Amino acid sequence: MPHLERVRQYPKTVKGFRASGIDAGLRVALGRPSAPDLALIAADGPCTAAGVFTTNYVKAAPVLLDEARIKANPNGIRAVLVNTASANACTSDEGMRNAEQSAAQTAATLGCKAEDVLVMSTGVIGVQLPMTQLQTGIPLAAAALRHDGWNDAAQAIMTTDTKPKAANIDFDGVNITGIAKGAGMIAPNMATMLSVIVTDAMISAPLLRRALDEAVSRSFNCIVVDGDMSTNDSVVVLASGASGIEITEDKLERFTGCLAAVCIVLAQGIVKDAEGATRFITLQVLGARTSAEARQVGNAIANSPLVKTAFYGGDANWGRIVMAAGHAGVPIDQSKLSLWYDDLQLVADGMPLRYDEARANALAAQPDIKVRLDLGLGSAEHTIWTCDLSHAYVDINGHYRT
Amino acid sequence: MPHLERVRQYPKTVKGFRASGIDAGLRVALGRPSAPDLALIAADGPCTAAGVFTTNYVKAAPVLLDEARIKANPNGIRAVLVNTASANACTSDEGMRNAEQSAAQTAATLGCKAEDVLVMSTGVIGVQLPMTQLQTGIPLAAAALRHDGWNDAAQAIMTTDTKPKAANIDFDGVNITGIAKGAGMIAPNMATMLSVIVTDAMISAPLLRRALDEAVSRSFNCIVVDGDMSTNDSVVVLASGASGIEITEDKLERFTGCLAAVCIVLAQGIVKDAEGATRFITLQVLGARTSAEARQVGNAIANSPLVKTAFYGGDANWGRIVMAAGHAGVPIDQSKLSLWYDDLQLVADGMPLRYDEARANALAAQPDIKVRLDLGLGSAEHTIWTCDLSHAYVDINGHYRT
Repeated sequence: MPHLERVRQYPKTVKGFRASGIDAGLRVALGRPSAPDLALIAADGPCTAAGVFTTNYVKAAPVLLDEARIKANPNGIRAVLVNTASANACTSDEGMRNAEQSAAQTAATLGCKAEDVLVMSTGVIGVQLPMTQLQTGIPLAAAALRHDGWNDAAQAIMTTDTKPKAANIDFDGVNITGIAKGAGMIAPNMATMLSVIVTDAMISAPLLRRALDEAVSRSFNCIVVDGDMSTNDSVVVLASGASGIEITEDKLERFTGCLAAVCIVLAQGIVKDAEGATRFITLQVLGARTSAEARQVGNAIANSPLVKTAFYGGDANWGRIVMAAGHAGVPIDQSKLSLWYDDLQLVADGMPLRYDEARANALAAQPDIKVRLDLGLGSAEHTIWTCDLSHAYVDINGHYRT
Repeated sequence: MPHLERVRQYPKTVKGFRASGIDAGLRVALGRPSAPDLALIAADGPCTAAGVFTTNYVKAAPVLLDEARIKANPNGIRAVLVNTASANACTSDEGMRNAEQSAAQTAATLGCKAEDVLVMSTGVIGVQLPMTQLQTGIPLAAAALRHDGWNDAAQAIMTTDTKPKAANIDFDGVNITGIAKGAGMIAPNMATMLSVIVTDAMISAPLLRRALDEAVSRSFNCIVVDGDMSTNDSVVVLASGASGIEITEDKLERFTGCLAAVCIVLAQGIVKDAEGATRFITLQVLGARTSAEARQVGNAIANSPLVKTAFYGGDANWGRIVMAAGHAGVPIDQSKLSLWYDDLQLVADGMPLRYDEARANALAAQPDIKVRLDLGLGSAEHTIWTCDLSHAYVDINGHYRT
């Protein structure tokens, strides 16, 4: 990843955009402690936009709304309103009316058309948006908009996140800044994650879409927290063109690399701050017949509660990794498997080696662990970033609503 | 399930079989506290046999051995030796030699041929069998064989199980007794579960195989603990014929029903005693297009850590059930979903109802919960038995080896 080291883990002002984050009382209205809960990202003029959304068959109202709006109006998006507390999912027609109404109010406040505004929601499923508080909050969020308001926005979209996630890169006169929230329900195909990314590049909607698809595939689609996939996952990128730098076909690869680098930093930030996570695990599956098979094996390992709890316990219980690889649905040959924790090889061609057990456990107990599984079947590979499964995960999710 | 209420949750003597369970020091040899760790089931003469084994691509040596032996010798099986402590999985050629050698020693002790003996192992993956202790233990286990030794055998095959699992039914002069161990790594397609079932029925190997396949599909393949599938899963049934009652084609359905009833009691016993489980959840998915789709949706729900932790917290967070149903890979229509906890309906045609939240949480906090999800798409259904995900699960699996 050539561009990764150039990404800063904080937001930067991007020409043509303002952001804000306020406490609109949405959380309190739903019986939670008060905290910033409403973010607004607004552009000075119409932006080209692209989005990637959850593949869950149960989609929240804002997801359905945004997909339709970006499709119909890919060159005219002006703002994104993001709320926490209610996911506005499984909320039926009333939920859709509420999503439309908050977009319309935001548009009226900003002086644009309703269909120029996107909305994102995160929180509890099956609970309607607290509309009274939202209606009061929207003008306040608009009044709070600032060119350097990104930290406030990043903070206001947090749910069980313990810290805001933001990333920025600049290159060739172009700037890309993104914010994200994550924490749980993070699966290989997106996550309970919302991310808004803005750039001052000038880029057509089709090229922006191609860049985003590729960037998401290299970043957000490579992380696993608990294997669940949310009803609300959304990544949206807006391009203002305010830099005056045009991204043409020949510059697309470089732009995509920089966008992917921002997304990777945000995605890894989500895993590092996952609910209750104590270890960050980079899992590389290599020697696969195809990269799809490598991904499938990696996902089975990263989703295995037995693998995840062993890492939590700092136990180099590599047998569970092999067990999980074996039930991924990919025909593997156990006599060809080799496995490493960092540079310590534990298994060679299916044979457990006589390694130093204390050293293996010490490696498994690191906060940042690299695991490499060679299937010995081909030359394709895939890397996944995941975390352990801890007591704190059970705490957080056993009592999330109460 | 017409036969279910007739199943006794303890073993009974079955004509033609003896059983034993002893502490052979296998556990101590691998650094664990001492406990019974070696079980032997022996028949007075050759039995017809059938087996169902893990579909994990990584299969333990005893699984490979037993599959081959039942195939080659379906009318001559005489004994099953079961050890805990080492799973004898990922143990390469040495592991297979050890499996063969322990079967051969058991055969010599019992006075039969090596190929008449099956072996099962459960425990840590990647660790060789403690052969010195096993060689000393086999004659002791043989000397301990008794017609009423089933409780000892059921206890000796336990790992993280907190209680032995046994079940018995008699009907039409025939007796079926089974023992099982489970606890974790329990997935829709079998489990880290071993089960040995014996009957004094006289039945051909092909009919026994059909009966077992059907019984396993209605029982062990309907339970989910943590979605992992072991390298060692094995269910074996031996029929001595000592009752003199022949199960012909026309009696097969009744025999299968009784065998399934024994398997269901064992399977439910595994879920109720699953690692750290505090709640037993009967999850019925109905209104599906096909029973395969109902099963797929049910498995996604039962495997969701977010669903499982919500049950642990006694939180009627039904949104997570809908979320998990949506990412099962089955096209569902959220506007057709209806959901009940016991007899309390929470969702009708995709609309959250105004139900009594305190009552819903009280239902979700019961030790025995029934959840019903109607997809509204057809008339197929499937029922899964599963459990919650607790702090104790993390405790047990974070430090299983240490």
